[in-house]
Amino acid sequence: MNRLFDKLKPKENKFFLLLHEMCEIIIKASDLIIECVKVTTHDDAVRYYIQIKELEHKADSVQSQIFEELNNTFITPFDREDINNLSSKMDDIMDLINSCSKRIVLYNPKRIPENATELAVLLRESVGYLVLAVEELDSFKKRPDKIKEYCAQLDQAEKKADDVYEHFLIDLFANEKDAIEVIKLKDILHELERATDASEAVGKIIRTVIIKYS
Amino acid sequence: MNRLFDKLKPKENKFFLLLHEMCEIIIKASDLIIECVKVTTHDDAVRYYIQIKELEHKADSVQSQIFEELNNTFITPFDREDINNLSSKMDDIMDLINSCSKRIVLYNPKRIPENATELAVLLRESVGYLVLAVEELDSFKKRPDKIKEYCAQLDQAEKKADDVYEHFLIDLFANEKDAIEVIKLKDILHELERATDASEAVGKIIRTVIIKYS
Amino acid sequence: MNRLFDKLKPKENKFFLLLHEMCEIIIKASDLIIECVKVTTHDDAVRYYIQIKELEHKADSVQSQIFEELNNTFITPFDREDINNLSSKMDDIMDLINSCSKRIVLYNPKRIPENATELAVLLRESVGYLVLAVEELDSFKKRPDKIKEYCAQLDQAEKKADDVYEHFLIDLFANEKDAIEVIKLKDILHELERATDASEAVGKIIRTVIIKYS
Repeated sequence: MNRLFDKLKPKENKFFLLLHEMCEIIIKASDLIIECVKVTTHDDAVRYYIQIKELEHKADSVQSQIFEELNNTFITPFDREDINNLSSKMDDIMDLINSCSKRIVLYNPKRIPENATELAVLLRESVGYLVLAVEELDSFKKRPDKIKEYCAQLDQAEKKADDVYEHFLIDLFANEKDAIEVIKLKDILHELERATDASEAVGKIIRTVIIKYS
Repeated sequence: MNRLFDKLKPKENKFFLLLHEMCEIIIKASDLIIECVKVTTHDDAVRYYIQIKELEHKADSVQSQIFEELNNTFITPFDREDINNLSSKMDDIMDLINSCSKRIVLYNPKRIPENATELAVLLRESVGYLVLAVEELDSFKKRPDKIKEYCAQLDQAEKKADDVYEHFLIDLFANEKDAIEVIKLKDILHELERATDASEAVGKIIRTVIIKYS
Repeated sequence: MNRLFDKLKPKENKFFLLLHEMCEIIIKASDLIIECVKVTTHDDAVRYYIQIKELEHKADSVQSQIFEELNNTFITPFDREDINNLSSKMDDIMDLINSCSKRIVLYNPKRIPENATELAVLLRESVGYLVLAVEELDSFKKRPDKIKEYCAQLDQAEKKADDVYEHFLIDLFANEKDAIEVIKLKDILHELERATDASEAVGKIIRTVIIKYS
């Protein structure tokens, strides 16, 4: 019995509590970014950015705690790497949401297109499935199929997000004649798209963990 | 005798067959991207993009098979990491070629400069040497010098590609006055340049493997 | 006694000598980049770029030597990974400084804003603390607090650099009406900002090493 989550006992709960905290943070952040891309004034953008930045600091702190726990817990390097990958990729989602809202504040674009809201909603959807999958990890040997289903739905959301992002780019280059606005909007939405990619990457790590330990 | 490719036996052939498949895919893709940067109509660009996208899906599937094989095969983590690095970096080349052709389709630039063809030809050259080196890997203990020579030629191609990319940038900023075209072309050729970097990175991994196991 | 730097003996000095060389190179490069962003003629920019490029080649060679030493030295993979991470992240700083000066030469912007000098000075500051921390590594068991203090100061410099970069972006989008200049300057300063990020990343690796081995 040298499987991942058996080895983690009795530290197990600690890790799951920390992962759970990370989940809650990125859910909140993806709720906020939907509002942030809908703002019509700079002041509103700043307000959302401040809230998101705070969540980003919390995520950093959770990630550090996970990292320190891992180094103080006796588990093999390879397992350690999986857990660290998982939480650090979740932290990446947080960073990209933060970076998106920061760019809105710094660049102050004339208006943010509706595709941004669509993209943010799909990010929230994918993060929702991701969190469901992560929260099943402590019982994945009993119900691996549930996790696989969540990961499949996460992938669906990510594919839709890709389409939305592609349409945004086509629209942008076809219709926006102000090159500086092109730069701003391309940069802002790129962070959202990268956030959905990071969410897909978390799904891949989860699937890997299932293959390796089940 | 605890060398990499001895340990892989009798699974060895499986890995080499999969790596060989990956090689064939990126060769085809680099042939197609040369044509894709030469197109004069959007419809032609779309046609090449569709073919490249298909290859990208195939490469993903090969990469997944390699990953699963690695997890089902008893080899040490470090060796596993090398093989995984090798194939996933090759997959990166594929992704960047795909991304380049996708950008051509989405951005629809007025015209693509000739440096793009030059760059694509050098990418094809470097990928050619890379594939020769990878295909020698199963006999590298007999002929390490051949692999080293292919890697050296790969590096030569990459250096030439760097020069072409630099000249492209100088030309672009000196002559293109339409800022939106600057954004488009810079983004499109950047993916080609990154593809040659990824090819160089594969060369580095191969050299590392030789140092470690020969 | 299976701690990192004990295991390295008697090879220890070799590694520290190579790390020390790497430190000297990035110190010189960060001195040069301060001058390079202040230039008023293209010829001067080229002059600094040539010197920086030379340092970049030296850093590559040191990084290769470290890598080869690591592969010829009996130490566990995990320790090896730490040392390799450390020096390759330091090499990243060098690459980004090189890339920044290369972009100045290739893009030939009309003028480089003063924030660039501020940013380069902060990069130099952060690299200075980084080097102090790295040079303490061979005696970190005696004086871990010193290293922690240097890392804290490195973080301070990085935070200031973030602020300067943010102000640069706000200024740029508020005042620069030439979109092509926006592209150029954003790209040039982005490399400097990434260099300070890489410096912060080295700080994190050092802290990790301290947690793991002290």
